[in-house]
Amino acid sequence: MRATLMYGAGDVRVQTVPDPVLHQSTDAIVRVLASAICGSDLWPYGSLPPSSLGRRMGHEFLGVVEDVGADVSTLKRGEVVVAPFVWSDGTCEFCREGLPTSCRHGGQWGHTLDGGQGEAVRVPQADGTLVTLPVGEDSALLPSLLTLSDVFCTGHHCAVSAGVSERTTVTVIGDGAVGLSAVLAAKRLGAEQIVLMGRHRDRTDLGRRFGATEIVTERGQEGAQKVRELSGGDGTHTVLECVGTRSALETAFAMTRPGGTVSRVGAPQYEEFTMGFGHFMNNIRLVGGVAPARAYIPELLPDVLAGRIEPGLMFDRSVGLDQIPDGYRAMAERHALKVMIRP
Amino acid sequence: MRATLMYGAGDVRVQTVPDPVLHQSTDAIVRVLASAICGSDLWPYGSLPPSSLGRRMGHEFLGVVEDVGADVSTLKRGEVVVAPFVWSDGTCEFCREGLPTSCRHGGQWGHTLDGGQGEAVRVPQADGTLVTLPVGEDSALLPSLLTLSDVFCTGHHCAVSAGVSERTTVTVIGDGAVGLSAVLAAKRLGAEQIVLMGRHRDRTDLGRRFGATEIVTERGQEGAQKVRELSGGDGTHTVLECVGTRSALETAFAMTRPGGTVSRVGAPQYEEFTMGFGHFMNNIRLVGGVAPARAYIPELLPDVLAGRIEPGLMFDRSVGLDQIPDGYRAMAERHALKVMIRP
Repeated sequence: MRATLMYGAGDVRVQTVPDPVLHQSTDAIVRVLASAICGSDLWPYGSLPPSSLGRRMGHEFLGVVEDVGADVSTLKRGEVVVAPFVWSDGTCEFCREGLPTSCRHGGQWGHTLDGGQGEAVRVPQADGTLVTLPVGEDSALLPSLLTLSDVFCTGHHCAVSAGVSERTTVTVIGDGAVGLSAVLAAKRLGAEQIVLMGRHRDRTDLGRRFGATEIVTERGQEGAQKVRELSGGDGTHTVLECVGTRSALETAFAMTRPGGTVSRVGAPQYEEFTMGFGHFMNNIRLVGGVAPARAYIPELLPDVLAGRIEPGLMFDRSVGLDQIPDGYRAMAERHALKVMIRP
Repeated sequence: MRATLMYGAGDVRVQTVPDPVLHQSTDAIVRVLASAICGSDLWPYGSLPPSSLGRRMGHEFLGVVEDVGADVSTLKRGEVVVAPFVWSDGTCEFCREGLPTSCRHGGQWGHTLDGGQGEAVRVPQADGTLVTLPVGEDSALLPSLLTLSDVFCTGHHCAVSAGVSERTTVTVIGDGAVGLSAVLAAKRLGAEQIVLMGRHRDRTDLGRRFGATEIVTERGQEGAQKVRELSGGDGTHTVLECVGTRSALETAFAMTRPGGTVSRVGAPQYEEFTMGFGHFMNNIRLVGGVAPARAYIPELLPDVLAGRIEPGLMFDRSVGLDQIPDGYRAMAERHALKVMIRP
């Protein structure tokens, strides 16, 4: 089959690799109907050292069950399924606690395993990992359903971790796909004031459609000052940091209301950060992390199926396998917000 | 009257200062029955640059109302009252939300105002700040009641912020008075496993009396490894950081269970800290801050009055005004855990 490998920064190739086969009795083979390029794929795309060992790419996909191992009990061939971006057994204590990203027997796609940006994937721990979707292969809902694999669940996790509700004001930092997902999630959770910080008009327009009530184009301390002005001087109860840089995180703290919460889901591109005495005096919490998408899919699925939310609107480009390198380039250069791949 | 001033590191003097008088109609004058030296007083005691302008000291005290301004409605002369370590109006939105430490019209004792380590204090915003205690001036409960001004409320805030309950395992870092308060608070909230990290036998013995189930004397990564072993390999659900150093905070993250919470209340002696990618992958929260003691006193007071908790056991030395410099020295050299001052 054909699949995507990254050999270094800017070097993405679609190549022939072995077809996936069942290794364990708990595996399934999924033929990919749609996958996506993630904002987090852009970090190695910008910085991965060159290597002759390509890294298999892609961790957002949905598809059709082609085969299942002997111990898979909840899935049948021909079913359409979505895979969260971390696989998990569904039975360990972390999975039962709603934290499948810390599963005792789980792991991540790609690297040495199959990735989602290819024709098919061997799925470990299939019963625990995959969620059956009650739709056909040609459903118009596939783009929105695909966002449940990662990006929309990540925005949702950011908002839920922060405690967003109808009683909280919200600022979202970042108008990328995760930021826009966080806007949509905050709206879904009832927030009335949702400030979106971003400077790409087409993206912030979609942010308004998703529920943003104000747009702030300034960044850093200037942006924080603007958010404080928009929120009566004190900042918003919750700030959803959807970028992953140190400066975005520090900006987040600068515009959180005393007693409020900074939630971060952007894959952190920093190890150290500054959190001054003022944040201690103001009792500002820092929450968030990698989104346990598998735990959220059952809750979010009905709203997607009913069309009450349309996170799939974020896909503004669709490519075939051969155009995947173009898709990376378009996202890296910000010509595309979010690229869908249809093998 | 006589009061305590600090003129630089190690330089504490008890001197004659003007008697407090009512300035505002919302003030009260309180004659101090008992006050305390706080662990946070030891930071300037160790590092304050010399100055000819002494800094008034003390933010933990209880006493008797001697006089009230015309607009004070809830307090009467002769009542015994306790003051939280931050004063507040009790009416602004932050006070109403339970965060009096961010009061719009509040502030801190000492510095240019009266401090608690003296004979009397002018209390601003007296209605919002002071809590009447239904005891006499010679009550045997005064030491425990005095801890409501700061140290026990601080330990309680650490535990409450972390979400400690009968379902969480707990590690407390630090066997100082705040750490021991956190142990007592965690026990009061129902925690069954409470690991106390400390290496002073007399303090950890009191920790056991307060509810610690295990003592870990190792520090840093070695201590974190020990806590992980005691908690089935994963760390505890909550880690209560009661020291305030960067190394204590980093140790805290190293022994928190995935999905768990680090709560910090030790006045932070750092600006930057390291929070690696692993903490993001494990969804570990960071909460806590300065304790809104005023908001907690009504809830904690009944347990102190009934003798169900005895945080006053932490006072292992009592001094008069003249011995206050000795009290500082004893705490700084760790000959005393917590010093009470009886003017």
